[in-house]
Amino acid sequence: MDDKNFVKELTKMDDNFTDWYTDVILKSELVDYAPVKGFMVIRPYGYALWENIQKVLDEKFKETGHKNAYFPLLIPESMLNKEKEHVAGFAPEVAWVTHGGDNKLQERLCIRPTSETIICTMYSKWIKSHRDLPLLINQWANVVRWEKTTRPFLRTTEFLWQEGHTLHSTANEAIEETLRMHKIYADFCEEYLAIPVIKGIKSEKERFAGAVSTYTIEALMHDGKALQSGTSHYLGTHFSKAFDIKFQNKVGKEEHAYQTSWGMSTRVIGGIIMTHGDDRGLKLPPNIAPIQVVIVPIAGQKPGVLNKVAELKKELSSKFRVELDDREEYSPGYKFNHWELRGVPVRVEIGPRDIENNNCIIFRRDTLQKETISLDTLQEHIEKLLVDIQQNMFEMAKENTENYTFEARSLEEYINIFETKQGFVKMMWCGDVACEDKIKDLTASTIRCIPFEEEQLDTKCAICGKDSKHMVYTARQY
Amino acid sequence: MDDKNFVKELTKMDDNFTDWYTDVILKSELVDYAPVKGFMVIRPYGYALWENIQKVLDEKFKETGHKNAYFPLLIPESMLNKEKEHVAGFAPEVAWVTHGGDNKLQERLCIRPTSETIICTMYSKWIKSHRDLPLLINQWANVVRWEKTTRPFLRTTEFLWQEGHTLHSTANEAIEETLRMHKIYADFCEEYLAIPVIKGIKSEKERFAGAVSTYTIEALMHDGKALQSGTSHYLGTHFSKAFDIKFQNKVGKEEHAYQTSWGMSTRVIGGIIMTHGDDRGLKLPPNIAPIQVVIVPIAGQKPGVLNKVAELKKELSSKFRVELDDREEYSPGYKFNHWELRGVPVRVEIGPRDIENNNCIIFRRDTLQKETISLDTLQEHIEKLLVDIQQNMFEMAKENTENYTFEARSLEEYINIFETKQGFVKMMWCGDVACEDKIKDLTASTIRCIPFEEEQLDTKCAICGKDSKHMVYTARQY
Repeated sequence: MDDKNFVKELTKMDDNFTDWYTDVILKSELVDYAPVKGFMVIRPYGYALWENIQKVLDEKFKETGHKNAYFPLLIPESMLNKEKEHVAGFAPEVAWVTHGGDNKLQERLCIRPTSETIICTMYSKWIKSHRDLPLLINQWANVVRWEKTTRPFLRTTEFLWQEGHTLHSTANEAIEETLRMHKIYADFCEEYLAIPVIKGIKSEKERFAGAVSTYTIEALMHDGKALQSGTSHYLGTHFSKAFDIKFQNKVGKEEHAYQTSWGMSTRVIGGIIMTHGDDRGLKLPPNIAPIQVVIVPIAGQKPGVLNKVAELKKELSSKFRVELDDREEYSPGYKFNHWELRGVPVRVEIGPRDIENNNCIIFRRDTLQKETISLDTLQEHIEKLLVDIQQNMFEMAKENTENYTFEARSLEEYINIFETKQGFVKMMWCGDVACEDKIKDLTASTIRCIPFEEEQLDTKCAICGKDSKHMVYTARQY
Repeated sequence: MDDKNFVKELTKMDDNFTDWYTDVILKSELVDYAPVKGFMVIRPYGYALWENIQKVLDEKFKETGHKNAYFPLLIPESMLNKEKEHVAGFAPEVAWVTHGGDNKLQERLCIRPTSETIICTMYSKWIKSHRDLPLLINQWANVVRWEKTTRPFLRTTEFLWQEGHTLHSTANEAIEETLRMHKIYADFCEEYLAIPVIKGIKSEKERFAGAVSTYTIEALMHDGKALQSGTSHYLGTHFSKAFDIKFQNKVGKEEHAYQTSWGMSTRVIGGIIMTHGDDRGLKLPPNIAPIQVVIVPIAGQKPGVLNKVAELKKELSSKFRVELDDREEYSPGYKFNHWELRGVPVRVEIGPRDIENNNCIIFRRDTLQKETISLDTLQEHIEKLLVDIQQNMFEMAKENTENYTFEARSLEEYINIFETKQGFVKMMWCGDVACEDKIKDLTASTIRCIPFEEEQLDTKCAICGKDSKHMVYTARQY
C-alpha cells in the first residue's frame, strides 16, 4: 500500500507501454494478481469503476425494455455441443468440473464461457406463442475462458460482464435489436468513458462463433493497438434451430425464433486506462470516476483548516463524488501524487491563507493546470469543470485516434506502416479470407471491422489487387 | 406461461406445504429448474426481487464504510486446506475443476463455496500497518456447494449472495463489526421483508466452520420450520494465523489481525415466500416488491378506458413501481388471478363507470379487501396503503411466529410438541452437545440459537435435567 516513490517507480509510457500498464493498474490499486495464474482480484477502487459502468448500462438496458435474470454457472458438455460452430469456438478454452465433493460426475460440466447454450435450453421451454415475444433478458455474471496469455482486465481467465440474450418473431426485429444495443455500447463508450470508437461489422473470420453477423465497436489505445470494446451479435436461427426454440406465429404456424446476444465486460476498464492514462498514472473520465473531486488540506495542523475542509466536503458531496484526504501522516505533495496516480479528475487544495482570502486552488488532472477560485462559486465552477474535462478527454482521445489512423493502398505500404508505427489502417479489401490471413501472417494485424461509414479509398484490394468490396479498419489488437 | 387455471392447479398450503411452495415459485415465474440437478434459473420476476434486496443491503453496507470488490471464482485445493476446521466443513461439498480446455491442471481448483481462504491470501499481502485497518470489504458473488437435496432458493448447488470480509486491529472492534452487520440483517428482514426474526448466537455445534462465534437471525416459516436468514461470524485470529495476516500495531509490534465475515443470500427469497404466501400464491412486502401497484382496466374496449389507465400509470409511476396490464387477450378476472399469484400488494381496477364517477377500486393483496377511492386522492391513498400493508404483513407474521412458539420443560414435553405440531420451542439447555444430538435424533430439530433475550423458564436443562446454562430456541429447519 506504499506509493511514496511511485513517480520514479512508474515505468514511462514511451519506454515500455506494457510495463507502464502493469505498474499503473497495480499501484493505483485497481487490481491485484490472484494466486491462480490468469485470474485477477478487482480491488475496491477498480470495482467502484465497474459499479459505475454497471449502473449506467443497466439503466440503458432497462429503458429499452430488458429485464435481468440469472442462469446457472455450469453447463453440461452435451449442451455445449449442440451448436456446432459455437462448440468449435469455445470448447478448447473452457474449464471442466468433473467432481462434486468426492463423487465423479456422470457428465462433465463446463463453467460458462458465455451462456447461449444454457439460456437457449430454457428459452425453448418458455416460448410458445408470438405473444411471448420479444423476450428481452440480460444477465450480469462471471464467465471463465482458459486463456493462454492473460493481462488484468484485457484478457483474464475469469471476467465479469453482462450478456444480453433476446428472442424475436422476425429477423428484422432481431437485427434492429442488435443494432440498438450496438449503438448503446458506442454511445456509452463515447459519452461516459470518453473513448471514441469505430462502429462496424466484423468480417466472417472474426465473428462470434455461431453468429450470422457481429457488430463491434473498436477503440484505439495509446500505443496504437485496437481494443474491441463491446459486441452485439445477430444469431439468426442458428441457435433456435439447434435448441428447438419455436413459437406459433399470428397465423398459427410454427416458426423458429430470431435471436441476438450482446456483451460488454470488465475489459473496457483496460480501455479507459490505455486511452487516457499518462506518465503520472490513471486519468479517469468524470462521468465514471469513483472519486470526482479530492480535497487536500494544506497545513492541516493549522487552526481552522480541518474544519473548513470537512465543511467543504459536506457541501460538495451533495453534488459530486468527493473524497477528503485528511490523513495526518502524509504530506500534501505525497497526496497530490497519490490521487494523480488514481486519476481523480479534480483536486481542491486549501490552506490557511486560502481560507483567509476565501479562495482555494483547483487542479485538473487532464491538463495538469491549476487556478485559484473563490469559495463562493466553487460548486458551480466544479460542475462546469467536470463537463469540460469529460469533453476535453474525449477530444484528446479523438485527436490521438485520428493521428494514428493511416491509409494503405498496397501491401508494401501496409507492411511499411506496421514496421515503423502502429495504429488503425484504413484500406480497401476484396472480401477474401486469404488477404486477412496474409496481413495477419506478415504484420500480426487483423481486420477490426468494416465500418458503417466506408470511404472509397481505391477500387482495388490493397493486399491482392483484385476488385475491392469494402473499406476496412485493420490494426494489431488486444 | 399459461396460468389460466392456476387457482385449481395450485396445491393448497395445508394439504402439502412442499408442493404449495414448488407450485408457487414455478407458476409465479420466480424461478425455473435448470437442466443440471440442484441448479436454478432465477427468472426476471425473481431476479427483480433480488435486485431490490441488493440495492437496500448495498446501501446499508456502504453507509457503514464498506466497499465492494471481486475475488476469483476458483480456489486452489492447497489454499482451501489451510484452515483445518474450515476445510473439514467445506471440502465434502465443493465442485472441483480438473481441466482447462484439453489440459489437466497441475492442482485441482474448487469453485468457491465461500471466499475466506482466497480473500485471506490477498489480505496477507495488503495489510502491513495498523493504518491499513480496518479493512471493510464486501463481495456480491455466486458460490457453489454440492448439496445432496436441493430446493430453489432454500438450498441450491449454486446460489447468489454477498459475503463481507473485514479485518480489525482489536478483537473488540471485530466483535462490534460482527454485531453491527448482524443488526443490519435483522433490521433489513423486519423492515423490508416484513419477516420477524429471533436474534441470537449459534451453539458451538452449529457455528460456521472456522469461526469463534456465529450470530444468526432465525425466522419461522408458515409450516413451523425455521429458516436461518443471515449469519455474521466473528473469526478471531483463526484465519489470520493460518494465512499469516499480520500488522504492525501503534507501538511497532506485529500482531495477527482480527476478522469477521457475514453473508446473506438468495435464500431469503424463500423466506419471503414461506412467511407471507397463501393459497392464492405470493404475497410480497411493498418495500421490496418488484411491482407495488398493478392497474387493470375493466372493459378496456370501451372508449376512454385505455387512455385513462395509461394516464394513471404515468402519474403513479413517479411515486411507485407500477405495472399496467392492458393485454387484450385476457379477461379482468384472469388478470386478477395472475397478479395475486405474483403477490403484487395493490391492484387498481378502473372501468367506464368508475371513470364517470371519478373513482377506482383498490384491492389489497394482504387482506384481500376492496374499497372505492376517489381518483383525486389516489396517490396519497396508495402511499398510506403501502405503508399499512407492509406493517400489517409484519404483524401477521409476528402473530404467526408467536402462535407457533412453544415451551418445553422436559424431554417428554419436547418430543410431544414435535409429534403434534411444529414451530419454535423455547427450552433451557445445559450447554452439552449430547443434548443437541439427542433432540436431533429424536425429533430432527436443532438448536437455532441462544437468543440475545433469554428468559429463565427453569433452572434445569429440559433434556437431561442438569443445571441449565442458557435458554435456547430450537426448531426443525430448512
